[in-house]
Amino acid sequence: MKMSTRNRLPGIVTEVVKDEVMAKVTLRVGDNHIVALITRESCEELGLEPGKEATALVKATSVMLLTEDGAA
Amino acid sequence: MKMSTRNRLPGIVTEVVKDEVMAKVTLRVGDNHIVALITRESCEELGLEPGKEATALVKATSVMLLTEDGAA
Amino acid sequence: MKMSTRNRLPGIVTEVVKDEVMAKVTLRVGDNHIVALITRESCEELGLEPGKEATALVKATSVMLLTEDGAA
Amino acid sequence: MKMSTRNRLPGIVTEVVKDEVMAKVTLRVGDNHIVALITRESCEELGLEPGKEATALVKATSVMLLTEDGAA
Amino acid sequence: MKMSTRNRLPGIVTEVVKDEVMAKVTLRVGDNHIVALITRESCEELGLEPGKEATALVKATSVMLLTEDGAA
Amino acid sequence: MKMSTRNRLPGIVTEVVKDEVMAKVTLRVGDNHIVALITRESCEELGLEPGKEATALVKATSVMLLTEDGAA
Repeated sequence: MKMSTRNRLPGIVTEVVKDEVMAKVTLRVGDNHIVALITRESCEELGLEPGKEATALVKATSVMLLTEDGAA
Repeated sequence: MKMSTRNRLPGIVTEVVKDEVMAKVTLRVGDNHIVALITRESCEELGLEPGKEATALVKATSVMLLTEDGAA
Repeated sequence: MKMSTRNRLPGIVTEVVKDEVMAKVTLRVGDNHIVALITRESCEELGLEPGKEATALVKATSVMLLTEDGAA
Repeated sequence: MKMSTRNRLPGIVTEVVKDEVMAKVTLRVGDNHIVALITRESCEELGLEPGKEATALVKATSVMLLTEDGAA
Repeated sequence: MKMSTRNRLPGIVTEVVKDEVMAKVTLRVGDNHIVALITRESCEELGLEPGKEATALVKATSVMLLTEDGAA
Repeated sequence: MKMSTRNRLPGIVTEVVKDEVMAKVTLRVGDNHIVALITRESCEELGLEPGKEATALVKATSVMLLTEDGAA
């Protein structure tokens, strides 16, 4: 299987918070944290809970960039 | 300044490819690569070129998750 | 700080509705209303409540356009 | 016709830049400018050119918020 | 009225789940199911409930592609 | 492998248009057409060309809904 999605960040789930409809899942990816808002349904199908390995996927059209002014 | 955007991944620009309208900017973020599709106009305003520091921003609603089946 | 995000609409918060995971924040921006769906966590970190100034940010890839047929 | 899309910003096209695949369309909406990245194909179907009326549509999940720290 | 949004999938609502802020609406579109996460407010304004006709709209920048390796 | 992405629409590529940075790929999915804007790089890695099978993926947060007023 190949996917067009350019960005894949493998990490470990650190927190899951659920509503009736939505779930907020936090991963640790290297030195960063990544937060995903997905359906509660997906969260349960994937068995996401703290300690589980998961990969964050992000389409390139959804990535913005920021620079510090004074920085090189 | 505070932003609602949950995901901020600081990195270094490694490649820039431009069209008339769009620019594809690749960053190295820790052990991963992040690709952003932005306007050429933004790319030039931010002075993005290889070697420059930049931070990738991603809204949590744009993050998907993937798990390997056999994985814990 | 410079951001690639093209669209910035300064306004005033008029309503906040929260769930466990999500918050819906409404701004008045000139003659229009803008609704943002963000995490409850972001909403609380930014101290969003009616009367507070906030700026809506939208990546250009997320904007669609509509025209009226009869219109010039 | 009714649409779930919460955000509709009526304006006037001020600039159109086209590539083979993409078009960047800028609108003036009140005191703000809105940039949309759409297909060239859509741009031509809608007959977008400077002076034409058009409405920008944005799904609420795509809106982020920013506050100035010192601000009330 | 003409819209830049390229993808329109007409279907029938099969399920609606609501939170205070969000609603998850499932449509049957041909042989496929489509899930939309929208505001509860939109869901109620559109009167979405099982059996109602609705069309799913998706901006082309939000579509990813996947291929099976062995496939032609 | 399991993915949180709710919407998967299997189809056949009918057209590919490429720029330096972007590619527009059209699929036939049942009675509908789906257009995806992806990087040219992804398009080439996946070997997308007319006649090839591919599946469109769409995160549920990117789906909007529309109803006809007079309709049931």
